[in-house]
Amino acid sequence: MDIVVGGRRKAKRAYGFDEVALVPGPLVIDARDVDISWMLGGRKFDIPIIAAALDGAVNPALAVTMSELGGLAVLNLDGIQARYEDAEAVLQKIADAPSEGIIHYIQDLYAAAPVQPELIKRRIRQIKDAGGVAAVSAAPHTAQKAAEAAVEAGVDLFFVQSTVGTVRFESSTISQFPVADFCKNAPVPVIVGNTVGYQATYELMEAGAAGILVGVGPGHICTSRKVLGIGVPQISATADCAAARDDFFEKNGKYIPIITDGGIRNGGDISKAIAAGADAVMLGSTIAAAAEAPAPGYSWGMATSSADLPRGTRIKVGVSGSLKDILLGPAHKDDGTMNLVGALRLAMGSLGAHNLREMQTVEMIIAPAIASEGKSLQRAQGVG
Amino acid sequence: MDIVVGGRRKAKRAYGFDEVALVPGPLVIDARDVDISWMLGGRKFDIPIIAAALDGAVNPALAVTMSELGGLAVLNLDGIQARYEDAEAVLQKIADAPSEGIIHYIQDLYAAAPVQPELIKRRIRQIKDAGGVAAVSAAPHTAQKAAEAAVEAGVDLFFVQSTVGTVRFESSTISQFPVADFCKNAPVPVIVGNTVGYQATYELMEAGAAGILVGVGPGHICTSRKVLGIGVPQISATADCAAARDDFFEKNGKYIPIITDGGIRNGGDISKAIAAGADAVMLGSTIAAAAEAPAPGYSWGMATSSADLPRGTRIKVGVSGSLKDILLGPAHKDDGTMNLVGALRLAMGSLGAHNLREMQTVEMIIAPAIASEGKSLQRAQGVG
Amino acid sequence: MDIVVGGRRKAKRAYGFDEVALVPGPLVIDARDVDISWMLGGRKFDIPIIAAALDGAVNPALAVTMSELGGLAVLNLDGIQARYEDAEAVLQKIADAPSEGIIHYIQDLYAAAPVQPELIKRRIRQIKDAGGVAAVSAAPHTAQKAAEAAVEAGVDLFFVQSTVGTVRFESSTISQFPVADFCKNAPVPVIVGNTVGYQATYELMEAGAAGILVGVGPGHICTSRKVLGIGVPQISATADCAAARDDFFEKNGKYIPIITDGGIRNGGDISKAIAAGADAVMLGSTIAAAAEAPAPGYSWGMATSSADLPRGTRIKVGVSGSLKDILLGPAHKDDGTMNLVGALRLAMGSLGAHNLREMQTVEMIIAPAIASEGKSLQRAQGVG
Amino acid sequence: MDIVVGGRRKAKRAYGFDEVALVPGPLVIDARDVDISWMLGGRKFDIPIIAAALDGAVNPALAVTMSELGGLAVLNLDGIQARYEDAEAVLQKIADAPSEGIIHYIQDLYAAAPVQPELIKRRIRQIKDAGGVAAVSAAPHTAQKAAEAAVEAGVDLFFVQSTVGTVRFESSTISQFPVADFCKNAPVPVIVGNTVGYQATYELMEAGAAGILVGVGPGHICTSRKVLGIGVPQISATADCAAARDDFFEKNGKYIPIITDGGIRNGGDISKAIAAGADAVMLGSTIAAAAEAPAPGYSWGMATSSADLPRGTRIKVGVSGSLKDILLGPAHKDDGTMNLVGALRLAMGSLGAHNLREMQTVEMIIAPAIASEGKSLQRAQGVG
Repeated sequence: MDIVVGGRRKAKRAYGFDEVALVPGPLVIDARDVDISWMLGGRKFDIPIIAAALDGAVNPALAVTMSELGGLAVLNLDGIQARYEDAEAVLQKIADAPSEGIIHYIQDLYAAAPVQPELIKRRIRQIKDAGGVAAVSAAPHTAQKAAEAAVEAGVDLFFVQSTVGTVRFESSTISQFPVADFCKNAPVPVIVGNTVGYQATYELMEAGAAGILVGVGPGHICTSRKVLGIGVPQISATADCAAARDDFFEKNGKYIPIITDGGIRNGGDISKAIAAGADAVMLGSTIAAAAEAPAPGYSWGMATSSADLPRGTRIKVGVSGSLKDILLGPAHKDDGTMNLVGALRLAMGSLGAHNLREMQTVEMIIAPAIASEGKSLQRAQGVG
Repeated sequence: MDIVVGGRRKAKRAYGFDEVALVPGPLVIDARDVDISWMLGGRKFDIPIIAAALDGAVNPALAVTMSELGGLAVLNLDGIQARYEDAEAVLQKIADAPSEGIIHYIQDLYAAAPVQPELIKRRIRQIKDAGGVAAVSAAPHTAQKAAEAAVEAGVDLFFVQSTVGTVRFESSTISQFPVADFCKNAPVPVIVGNTVGYQATYELMEAGAAGILVGVGPGHICTSRKVLGIGVPQISATADCAAARDDFFEKNGKYIPIITDGGIRNGGDISKAIAAGADAVMLGSTIAAAAEAPAPGYSWGMATSSADLPRGTRIKVGVSGSLKDILLGPAHKDDGTMNLVGALRLAMGSLGAHNLREMQTVEMIIAPAIASEGKSLQRAQGVG
Repeated sequence: MDIVVGGRRKAKRAYGFDEVALVPGPLVIDARDVDISWMLGGRKFDIPIIAAALDGAVNPALAVTMSELGGLAVLNLDGIQARYEDAEAVLQKIADAPSEGIIHYIQDLYAAAPVQPELIKRRIRQIKDAGGVAAVSAAPHTAQKAAEAAVEAGVDLFFVQSTVGTVRFESSTISQFPVADFCKNAPVPVIVGNTVGYQATYELMEAGAAGILVGVGPGHICTSRKVLGIGVPQISATADCAAARDDFFEKNGKYIPIITDGGIRNGGDISKAIAAGADAVMLGSTIAAAAEAPAPGYSWGMATSSADLPRGTRIKVGVSGSLKDILLGPAHKDDGTMNLVGALRLAMGSLGAHNLREMQTVEMIIAPAIASEGKSLQRAQGVG
Repeated sequence: MDIVVGGRRKAKRAYGFDEVALVPGPLVIDARDVDISWMLGGRKFDIPIIAAALDGAVNPALAVTMSELGGLAVLNLDGIQARYEDAEAVLQKIADAPSEGIIHYIQDLYAAAPVQPELIKRRIRQIKDAGGVAAVSAAPHTAQKAAEAAVEAGVDLFFVQSTVGTVRFESSTISQFPVADFCKNAPVPVIVGNTVGYQATYELMEAGAAGILVGVGPGHICTSRKVLGIGVPQISATADCAAARDDFFEKNGKYIPIITDGGIRNGGDISKAIAAGADAVMLGSTIAAAAEAPAPGYSWGMATSSADLPRGTRIKVGVSGSLKDILLGPAHKDDGTMNLVGALRLAMGSLGAHNLREMQTVEMIIAPAIASEGKSLQRAQGVG
């Protein structure tokens, strides 16, 4: 399927959420009978949705609620929660700051206060004491130190995340993050990302990752595409990594789940990500729009605070409802951002998928969602 | 024609109305000589247009007018007409309600009053007494009970409609709707939908359906795509189901018509649906824009009233003219929403199709209707 | 190159102006040395541009100017000029009328006054007396009668135009327009259109047409697409008809030029039409934007006045300059609507084409002109 | 890979910046270790970025700064700097002029003052005296005369630029620019452009060009496309020319770098251009947006001043920061227009490319950047 783009240069066509859709077949299943549970690091979760380690999306309280609802939330150990005692006040400041100069403002707030191991421990204990599953995230260069504090505090799952996470790293000045050693030595499961591509995923699984985050510059229009030229639409990225997962499982007998992370905006995208091969999805802004989110109505990315090359800014996400309504409904909006679990169940039922593994094989079509004048008329039909 | 979207995942490309166009050949036929009649359940109709079972589109009076004009209208037996004695007043309330909170408002109105068999009978008798063809629609879980009342009142055609209608349904808690038994036992023809795909269509035909509604999340941008990720553009969906119809006819000698339902906005879409293989089309908002429509100027979908996962909201469709002008002209707008029959006749004549079966084989091209700066200039040419 | 759109339905991909571009090669020719002359009906024209028979584009005076500049203009014998003594006053009324109800207004003005043979003669004599080439256009059902008057007045070229012009026509009530007889008996060359497709074009050439107008619903978004579903993008339509022309020439030794008509907005489109195989182009709104046009600043189509199914309305085209500036420059706009001949010459020179026949074979690429954020930056580069 | 567009007409699909993206693999390299140096005309440059010979982008002072930062700037010898003693004042006038009539205003300013060899010498000496590399550009018909003055003043690199630059040129009235003789006789390396296509590029290399500028009407929406119909998207154009470069190198042992010129808006485009095969890129408006640029906040193209067929106008580019911040950072915007070198380094590191030659072979995918509703949500994810 290689396409010549010019001269001897070839490329494959990659597909994103808006370019595909799912096709019902001859069997429909009662949505209540659908099994959407999944396993990560030996732990079973009722719903395949993870709140992303964004400062605007996850604080300890939200992590607890997320656990109660059957999902998982990841706390950012490089962010405000690990730098400021009164994190909530700082997050509110960011939410309240004017748009003009917001990148500088965020850069300064992150630079002004170093990460404190004591704060790491305190945040994790807040989650554990309330009965939640404590999952945390750190960048490769901060992971070793953060992990010591986190493990001491009783963390359950550890995420290591960078823009492009690979086993192999070359540098003349800094030492490599030892993925395999880290995974082997950590007393808890380690999830690594973000990645795209069969080979990189397979190598991370060989290195001992308990889960893989899939997604590098996934959106159709996203900052990594503009700044770096890098980015793979999520349907293709997920399908590539799923092939690695399935091959790894066949050869090694270990099923390492892959989690599609980035670019997911609604229930339809969740269904498509899983249909492309994902075992679960990670959501950022959709969760940041919960009433319980730390910086009500706002979100910003991990790379916003980059000192010399910020990618992403603070955006307004609004407040769509309680976390429970967003995940389990009822929805009082029709844009697919509420009752995500209900939507996934109904989608799977309509597609005849008994569980997530079957959902990974439902029929998919390429059907671009191009803007159309007929939008309002089509919506009125209701059956569509 | 399978395309690799990533890893081992494959998908076919599917096409919608805005991506195709029809191509004239060397023969032109006088539009007045074109035969656009078709058969449904042993009954002949002069025009291949059905008004959809939306509360904002069809009440008994409109059904009568539709019959007089040679078409057919389907009354929703799960809607306001079957729940409220003074349905028109309730429908007017919905039309008058503010947009803010409209989904809640509709949800409440539908939940507040149960379906009454007596009202079902009364509505059907209103249609029959005025000489109209009485066609009604119910969801699978309400169909049995509604059918009893409807048959008693002398209904002519019975539609069973759900988001995805199939012969096979699995549930641990509720019993399956027995499609084949229902079709066999009903004293009137039963039309079933909505469906997409060769296999599901073929199975419904084997189960005894007298007609099939084609269309699941058909629009380019529609709520099912956003909420569930599910949806098949109508040109491809129609062509797939048409292949099942033709094969079923060849093997069983029974010609079961397929009706493209959803996403049709104008005369051009009607022509394209039939050229893709449809025997007739079902229109919602275009009919809801008739002066005689029950909720003047507004329409909403069957799934708008869903309690936990509404898909679609109330939209303003405006009033474009009398039902007669919309169907038979004259048009005083140039956007293809009026004189639909005149447009279909002229299209078939220009394409050299003597009847609908020949229209199903005219030349089709893939020619995306992308937005273009030249829009106004092109329109001015007039010949285009 | 057939693509399956679903089931057993196949379609070819067709291309429009905005989807292709032309590619320079290793030879550049001085623009002044390029030969852009062409032959129509035994007559040589210096420039391959014809003003379309739209009431808003061509009156006798403009036809004379067009002849003086080396082009050709076609007068509409079914329009205002043939119906009203003081045509200019009526055209000004149309230009001055409010947008609200404009279609009705135009319908009424055309219906109120019948075509008068005396006016036909007078208009043609105005052109001839001033030394212009007199070309006129009529619909098939009015052509016979109009031709008598036109020939008597000394017309030079006769166009017969309908939405879809073919040799074969079936009707139970009206007699067929005898294309072959008409062409044979007319004392002047007869140009016929509009058509698309190899077969229809070849048949018209066999019937004796001296030229063929190519284009049915050509624009990306145009009324025929919306109302009828019919339309072929011009690059593909032109290339199809060019193949018929070349084959006809090879077998019969007669070179019948084809004229791309519809959807052309700027110099780039003219270049592309010829590169796709056209011998000349027909322009409507671009000419209607001339200061000398009959209804300054406005244009409307032949099908706008259709009583029961109007396709197209009156649009504002503005005034871009004198007809001479539009055709020969200098341009004082950079949007490609002025100095069309200069642009064609520069394009042909840059592409190494000595004449129009060579221009029909320059390298073409498929390169969609999608809207892009980078628009303004790209324009600033200037070299692009 | 030829596609039939209609009849016997074929075309290749060509790709632009917004249609492709780059894909990380299993290796990441420290961005600080990446080698982005390159050679042009025997001279080594630290960064592969050239400021284009636009009057709004380059004056002698900016050329010096550009040299200091490791790049190169080209001074336009046909522009204001070579025509007016007090060039800065004239440039400021252009920046200050109202938009209305700006093309005329620019046309007049260029026509009013002839190019003066003395000014050419003075500008070059200003650059040389301050320690900069002096690169200049002239059109083919002015190159001979300009070169005499430039060489006398000690110029380092000479660019000959026209819309379509080829070895072969035909004219009945003016003599051909002798590319091969000019390159052979010039005491400094001669870079020629602009070109697209394997054959034209190969011929220019045979003629002795020391570098090739790639790009004719590159943008998705650009004036050459609209006015002339000519234009090749840059990814395909670059890959075609890169194939010629590699073949020429293999046969002749001389590596002639190719420079992608036009349509580049951000760091992502730079990465993609090199990944398509470029050795360096040329930037116009991005440089014109530097605080040090000659006409602060504005830019216009070489073809804007064309007397009879202007292509491009003056556009507002704004001021994004100092030239140093634009090239080396830090960025305080997230749109990819600042810290271009940092972005290229990070992109190459993330893609596992040690140097530009390796960057030319990283994995590329076709992934259209279509406008999407999800834009803001995706950006918020930050990881994307």
